Amino acid sequence: MAITYKDATIQEVNDAMQSSWNAFKEYRKKDLKERAQFLKTVAREMQDVSAELISTASRETNLDEARLTVEFNRTVFQLTSYADACANGTWLDIRIDTGDSKRNPPKPDLRKMLVPLGPVVVFGSSNFPFAYSTAGGDTACALAAGCPVVIKAHPAHAETSELVANAVQRAAKKCGLPEGVFIHLHGASFEVGKALVQHPLTKAVGFTGSFEGGKALFDLANGREEPIPVFSEMGSVNPVFMLPAKLKSDAATIATMYADSITQSVGQFCTNPGILVGVEDYSLEQFKKFLGKQIQKVRPAKMLHPGIAKSFVQKREKALAQKSVAVAATTEFEPDENESIPTLAEVPAKEFLKNTLLHKEVFGPFSLLVKCSDVNEMTQVANAIEGQLTCSLIATNDEVKANPKLVEILKDKCGRFVLNGVPTGVEVALSMHHGGPYPATTDSRFTAVGADGIKRFARPVCFQNWSNELLPDELKNENPLNLWRTVNNELSKDPVI
Amino acid sequence: MAITYKDATIQEVNDAMQSSWNAFKEYRKKDLKERAQFLKTVAREMQDVSAELISTASRETNLDEARLTVEFNRTVFQLTSYADACANGTWLDIRIDTGDSKRNPPKPDLRKMLVPLGPVVVFGSSNFPFAYSTAGGDTACALAAGCPVVIKAHPAHAETSELVANAVQRAAKKCGLPEGVFIHLHGASFEVGKALVQHPLTKAVGFTGSFEGGKALFDLANGREEPIPVFSEMGSVNPVFMLPAKLKSDAATIATMYADSITQSVGQFCTNPGILVGVEDYSLEQFKKFLGKQIQKVRPAKMLHPGIAKSFVQKREKALAQKSVAVAATTEFEPDENESIPTLAEVPAKEFLKNTLLHKEVFGPFSLLVKCSDVNEMTQVANAIEGQLTCSLIATNDEVKANPKLVEILKDKCGRFVLNGVPTGVEVALSMHHGGPYPATTDSRFTAVGADGIKRFARPVCFQNWSNELLPDELKNENPLNLWRTVNNELSKDPVI
Repeated sequence: MAITYKDATIQEVNDAMQSSWNAFKEYRKKDLKERAQFLKTVAREMQDVSAELISTASRETNLDEARLTVEFNRTVFQLTSYADACANGTWLDIRIDTGDSKRNPPKPDLRKMLVPLGPVVVFGSSNFPFAYSTAGGDTACALAAGCPVVIKAHPAHAETSELVANAVQRAAKKCGLPEGVFIHLHGASFEVGKALVQHPLTKAVGFTGSFEGGKALFDLANGREEPIPVFSEMGSVNPVFMLPAKLKSDAATIATMYADSITQSVGQFCTNPGILVGVEDYSLEQFKKFLGKQIQKVRPAKMLHPGIAKSFVQKREKALAQKSVAVAATTEFEPDENESIPTLAEVPAKEFLKNTLLHKEVFGPFSLLVKCSDVNEMTQVANAIEGQLTCSLIATNDEVKANPKLVEILKDKCGRFVLNGVPTGVEVALSMHHGGPYPATTDSRFTAVGADGIKRFARPVCFQNWSNELLPDELKNENPLNLWRTVNNELSKDPVI
Repeated sequence: MAITYKDATIQEVNDAMQSSWNAFKEYRKKDLKERAQFLKTVAREMQDVSAELISTASRETNLDEARLTVEFNRTVFQLTSYADACANGTWLDIRIDTGDSKRNPPKPDLRKMLVPLGPVVVFGSSNFPFAYSTAGGDTACALAAGCPVVIKAHPAHAETSELVANAVQRAAKKCGLPEGVFIHLHGASFEVGKALVQHPLTKAVGFTGSFEGGKALFDLANGREEPIPVFSEMGSVNPVFMLPAKLKSDAATIATMYADSITQSVGQFCTNPGILVGVEDYSLEQFKKFLGKQIQKVRPAKMLHPGIAKSFVQKREKALAQKSVAVAATTEFEPDENESIPTLAEVPAKEFLKNTLLHKEVFGPFSLLVKCSDVNEMTQVANAIEGQLTCSLIATNDEVKANPKLVEILKDKCGRFVLNGVPTGVEVALSMHHGGPYPATTDSRFTAVGADGIKRFARPVCFQNWSNELLPDELKNENPLNLWRTVNNELSKDPVI
């Protein structure tokens, strides 16, 4: 039996933000090691109840336990690796320029580092109940930055969210942190989210989900008396451009790789490849045949929740009803209620270029093969697509070199540019960029994955002419925390003399 | 005789943005050294005509040549020092994580660096005809990032702007860059600015000026079909908090320092200290007397343009008409038309706390002394003010240590925190932060001064599984550009093995 939770009232939202603000005053004083310790304790508290978490999430999301175990481990890795990055402190972007009293006018001593923005409101996603929800990437980044977090649980896995929140709160207690450092609220209605984003004590927002949801929060935040930064990761179609020579050399392998990428986790990854673009020739026909055969064999599966299943059916049907769109392959099994229908559709590039509806995401196991007459037309398709989390290119080295225009356009459209691989599988690493031009996200300069995501929730403060004893440890001459700092334009860990 | 320029037509705006976009495709391919060379050539071309530039600017802005010479040299230093920072390449934030094919699943090779956003529209400021206008900080940062610039000249110094633009265009020609890399448009009406910000090929905006102007552009940019980042630096009142012991030890020196800071450049700096906060005692009376005497001796002077002079008079009168506000001192000279009226006003903190109109900037040589009954009330004043470019604290070391709450609140409100100094005099250095919480700027995470300002106009792209020969030089194994890079979580200049 699913537990139902009451939406937070406006009074509860106000109390939560006030409590978060009070906690901010304490929490931001915690040093980097204490914050790292907190994140690692959260990871351990979650691990202690992993079986219960995974089984509850599986019941709520219809995702199988193997898939959720991978995600759970990813979440633990995020917490511990961001904890290490937090403690390491390079993200503070410390810059020191020493003064010179003999210059006319005297040159002041200037020392800059990042400080936390304040309470961050995080919206859990539906498709990642662990990694991009309650104690997921946004939460880990905000806590590492020194910001308390108020989370709005995703109603589709509210019980999982509650259990994760309990683990975080146990960790906070063990670390001697104020209760308000992490607050968990339920809210199936949009009103709760709206009140949270509009609250004057909210200083930033993290969101992972649909374009409609992310854009609505962005607009609310910009409409405030004091606008605040919103990082909304809103998904994308993650187009794949396949050049002829590479496809010819390996159509079967590429088809297998993509059949898996399109359908894994019931196609519910934000990096799911929703558009495949190729040049009409024998190899493309072969590729389509191979891919189609594998799509046919994929069994329908329950989607995350009935709303997503309904939306998938509607968007799929709408796409298939467009002029010149045909089904290339679909599952040979009959779907039950709320189940997906793995599908490969096809359309000539000429029609794709005319119809922007086909450029939009059909969230689920659906991909559209866009057939071009030549690489020129393929370049037009690249030009026509919107901003993306990822673009992928299937090409030989010679093809990459022979098509600089296509390569440059694709780079321009995305946050991550994959060569001869699949966009799904977002590595957690400092070098990862999980972001991209609008509408993939609301700010292409920031990432949702990797420790650079901490910077979404911090801002620089420059201390001018403070004496050494009054400066934060991070900026003291002797560099007691042994941090990387740029001193008089040179990176170093040396003390300032 | 002032030359008048016709506003750009909508067609001219469209042509400019298309030409800028075309130039982007060329310009972004230029390597870091070529971009640096361009910035240095701009500086040289401006130096070649410095006398004409300075005399024209003086005629247009009423600022004297000595003041403008300092600003001119600052502008040259910005161009050359940002050129060095550009070539140095640390700002690219390169992160490399090498792959591991033996891991299950295989770990991809990931390499991330910043790339330019695209055409940037820059709005020249009225108060800095060189440093924050046509070839000022925003332009230098955008060009360093690899973005072409379209500048809207400030109508109050359109001729200066035209001359500077000619110098930039000569530099572009000498460096073999496409004409569209820098485009200069006139626009006295808001329509030109609006069309520029709304144009689909505009990818970012830099603005320095009034709150009304900066906020309007921010709203326009967020209302686009594709929202784009706007960095508006919108000024602030730069409050100064003076604690009793320090004031007692040095009231005369502090008064002299502040008399100068309040009135220099006719009070038309964005870091002008508009609010002085002290505790009512004998020292504060002494300070007021010293400061008042010096304010009396400051001669009225022509403001930047009649609009600013009119606004100064109106805002000053409105402030002085508020309950319990009194004039503490004003110039003993009679002002002519369009001249400033150097003024020190005073108000009890109790009234200041009730009346938010008094928290707003009166742009010009005007400062309001807020008199508190004790440090507690001073802390309430700190709590009540809005986000600021700077806060200043006048205090002994012991007073800093004894008032952690006040110190923390002030840090929270500003981008730069000055101890025992004045906020005017914004050093051009990597460690500078010229930004701050809203409404000082539209995004507290970025700076308008210092080479970190380049990051406003760039975004990360991650290359996944690209072979070494296909990667940009910045990311190649052998590190041919000898850049600082974070490789497998360690900063180094070593090649990747």
